[in-house]
Amino acid sequence: MNVFAVEGLPEIEPGDDIASLIAERVDLTPTDIVCVASTIVSKAEGRQADLSEFEPGEQAERIAEQVGDLADEEKDPRFAQAVIEESEELLMEFPIMLAVTTFGHITINAGIDRSNVPDADLLLLPEDPTASAQRLHEALGVPVIVTDTSGRPFRHGQRGVAIGWAGMPAARDWRGTYDRDGKELEATVQAVVDELAAAANLVTGEGAGGKPVAVVRDWEFGEFDGSDDLFRDEDEDLIRPALKEYSHAGD
Amino acid sequence: MNVFAVEGLPEIEPGDDIASLIAERVDLTPTDIVCVASTIVSKAEGRQADLSEFEPGEQAERIAEQVGDLADEEKDPRFAQAVIEESEELLMEFPIMLAVTTFGHITINAGIDRSNVPDADLLLLPEDPTASAQRLHEALGVPVIVTDTSGRPFRHGQRGVAIGWAGMPAARDWRGTYDRDGKELEATVQAVVDELAAAANLVTGEGAGGKPVAVVRDWEFGEFDGSDDLFRDEDEDLIRPALKEYSHAGD
Ligand SMILES: Nc1nc2c(ncn2[C@@H]2O[C@H](COP(=O)(O)OP(=O)(O)O)[C@@H](O)[C@H]2O)c(=O)[nH]1
Ligand SMILES: Nc1nc2c(ncn2[C@@H]2O[C@H](COP(=O)(O)OP(=O)(O)O)[C@@H](O)[C@H]2O)c(=O)[nH]1
Ligand SMILES: [Mn+2]
Ligand SMILES: [Mn+2]
Ligand SMILES: [Mn+2]
Ligand SMILES: [Mn+2]
Repeated sequence: MNVFAVEGLPEIEPGDDIASLIAERVDLTPTDIVCVASTIVSKAEGRQADLSEFEPGEQAERIAEQVGDLADEEKDPRFAQAVIEESEELLMEFPIMLAVTTFGHITINAGIDRSNVPDADLLLLPEDPTASAQRLHEALGVPVIVTDTSGRPFRHGQRGVAIGWAGMPAARDWRGTYDRDGKELEATVQAVVDELAAAANLVTGEGAGGKPVAVVRDWEFGEFDGSDDLFRDEDEDLIRPALKEYSHAGD
Repeated sequence: MNVFAVEGLPEIEPGDDIASLIAERVDLTPTDIVCVASTIVSKAEGRQADLSEFEPGEQAERIAEQVGDLADEEKDPRFAQAVIEESEELLMEFPIMLAVTTFGHITINAGIDRSNVPDADLLLLPEDPTASAQRLHEALGVPVIVTDTSGRPFRHGQRGVAIGWAGMPAARDWRGTYDRDGKELEATVQAVVDELAAAANLVTGEGAGGKPVAVVRDWEFGEFDGSDDLFRDEDEDLIRPALKEYSHAGD
């Protein structure tokens, strides 16, 4: 498996045709997988926003006040309002806003970025990353994964993760296959889009590198059943109810 | 970045010298990183165990009963006991045993495997995966990551993850660097050992493939500050207290 970044992409602006910009810079082969950082998908889709567009409601004011007290500095309730508007719900308001985005991804601040955003205060995640991946997939003719860098429970730091994908399943289902002793594997669903997004992040990096697109070459999904179930629904999630009960305990 | 599996490794047995078995099969270059599935580290370290070695206590009996009631079949309390003995604590007993292993990794069933274990009921995770990685690193002369396949909150499926590493830091610290607009990045610590473990898992896979070792070639950590803080301590963890309060609510 070979993973490399696409070189020489320009600063992306609203309306830009990312697929063409990629196709002009790399000769894709039919078995390639293209991983695109959500930041440029958002830029092309015009997801830049200014704080002035968000009118803080009661919840946003409360959150900004709590966070402000903790940090001992003024916090802008309009940012909290942006997070709320991008979310289905908040699992935790304080000291972090842990959001379920409208498309089901659980992440801090609903994935809103304040870095790498010229001429705007904020960059929101793509409205529907699966649809974005589908459009790129159709234009490029190979599977596409839209990625983000995000944190996760229990571990420090962030890693690349898939938030949308098209042209391939999200996971390899190993159930029904056998181990080295001929025993059937119990419950192994390998979330390959997340593993591919993590691999891509190793070559794109964060910060000013200017490399938002990675190509994965010579990796095969193989002869597996596929699954597109990546985001846990609330009723299959054991962590979510605990967080909700806990964080609303003081209500 | 190139990621490939080491071919032709035998079934690993207690006392086997994994480093030599790897070095005989691949010409490592000084900038390679070797990712080793914990399953063979455990096998070499004699971490096979039989259920008969575990004398269930009260907690194990209670867990087996609860899980058994749910599944409507007899559950073996000795397995629950094995998980308890491998753990610092359980964050959740039921319907899953979510364990903090003795070395700080949070995972279901304390990572005990019942697949790919010949001549024993169970395979426990290495006792100290950092020490295991350190020994392999010293013998191989390149950075080594000990990996496992494990699930994670909020998302379906499993992915490769680092449980021990040596010869390189766990994370790249991007704080103090600047984005494309010259704005300082706020809080970006890239957990590269987890991303490398995920990439390795794409070429090793699960099941009967017989490929427990992957080499990452032509990837550079680069000129970053490093951090070895990967597992969150309890007092820096926002999710853990919620889970503990929630799951012990019925006590
Ligand atoms: N060429 C180019 N690179 C960009 C642009 N925006 C961000 N990047 C680069 O894309 C990579 C990922 O950026 P990041 O902000 O981490 O995106 P995210 O992970 O999707 O939130 C970094 O190397 C950035 O320097 C852009 O408009 N053009
Ligand atoms: N050659 C060899 N391969 C093994 C052995 N044990 C497991 N494997 C392979 O190593 C890979 C990872 O196995 P898995 O059980 O998923 O390990 P884990 O992710 O560390 O729990 C699979 O391709 C297995 O077939 C062994 O003793 N020898
Ligand atoms: Mn982002
Ligand atoms: Mn990023
Ligand atoms: Mn395992
Ligand atoms: Mn595995």
